[in-house]
Amino acid sequence: MMPKKQRGQLIVLSGPSGVGKSTVIAELLSERQDIYFSVSFTTRKPRVGEEDGVNYNFVSRETFEGMIDRGEFLEYAKYVDNYYGTSLKVIEEKMEEGIDVLLDIEVQGAAKVKERCPDAVLIFIIPPSFEELSRRLHGRHTDDEAVIEGRLKKAREEYNQIPNYDFLVVNDKVSVAAGEIRAILVAEGCRTKNRMNLVEGV
Amino acid sequence: MMPKKQRGQLIVLSGPSGVGKSTVIAELLSERQDIYFSVSFTTRKPRVGEEDGVNYNFVSRETFEGMIDRGEFLEYAKYVDNYYGTSLKVIEEKMEEGIDVLLDIEVQGAAKVKERCPDAVLIFIIPPSFEELSRRLHGRHTDDEAVIEGRLKKAREEYNQIPNYDFLVVNDKVSVAAGEIRAILVAEGCRTKNRMNLVEGV
Repeated sequence: MMPKKQRGQLIVLSGPSGVGKSTVIAELLSERQDIYFSVSFTTRKPRVGEEDGVNYNFVSRETFEGMIDRGEFLEYAKYVDNYYGTSLKVIEEKMEEGIDVLLDIEVQGAAKVKERCPDAVLIFIIPPSFEELSRRLHGRHTDDEAVIEGRLKKAREEYNQIPNYDFLVVNDKVSVAAGEIRAILVAEGCRTKNRMNLVEGV
Repeated sequence: MMPKKQRGQLIVLSGPSGVGKSTVIAELLSERQDIYFSVSFTTRKPRVGEEDGVNYNFVSRETFEGMIDRGEFLEYAKYVDNYYGTSLKVIEEKMEEGIDVLLDIEVQGAAKVKERCPDAVLIFIIPPSFEELSRRLHGRHTDDEAVIEGRLKKAREEYNQIPNYDFLVVNDKVSVAAGEIRAILVAEGCRTKNRMNLVEGV
């Protein structure tokens, strides 16, 4: 008898702007092509190099608010005047098929996901230090000084939510951070509650 | 400022006789030489190929009972007429130094460890099937049929304790099983509660 397939895991990644989350995610997905990366919806404008449907689904405020009204979001939040949200339907289908789903969302959204899906695995990514975060934000050359100051302030606020996360990963070296997240996913798949289907006669 | 070193983790491995635990442990330790493998004390006789101080500290019943009286065990249990026990002192020292400690103990002992050390990580190793377990026990050529039957019966009893374990690993391929345990150790080291020392200003 083939054991029943394990349900896919829901993995939530958060971390301050500038921490290098997208790079870590790209590295992770390059080695775990079986993971489904859920692309969030947002009303903010694309940054240079960002692609619609890849980094985000970029939509208008009207479209987003229509989706809210129709209950299409697992979670959504407003953040610096823009909406960000995660569509529910596709995620549910993938997990049912046994596929792990990765969400890249900010702290408010993560808290809402944990509330609705207590089994979700929450991972927070931090930089080695605030000094290094500031350096990375300046190195991006996409934001002016006031915006960077805002992001650093926001980062400090987000740090207060770290105790709500199951795991904490430091993005010093991208390969190490991605490796730790890979290990977390393997380990979570080994949780007894997720594997009782493999135990005979119990 | 150097962050404070994380305390070492206490990892408990259990699994039925014949599952191949020693092989998995040897594979794990060959790649993680920083792990301290705590050698248990026992009053049972060495099996062919087993070495004193390596597989177990083989002691007499009198010695073992003296250690019980002096409170020297983290846990001990009687199992098929023999004592098995884990000495407390060395483990404490290693963990304090930030070294992960691995214990190979049976289900009664594991439950006692979890009671005394709630942060201990409990991993149960199962074979792909009872049929395969029987095959492995017969292949060992160390026990007669009655002993093997006793081990299989005991294995079925031990399976009832699986829900007390945090993680479940199937030893089908040794390299996969050891790899999963390695991932569990990495992941447990990433737990937020174990890493708050890396967070600035919280």
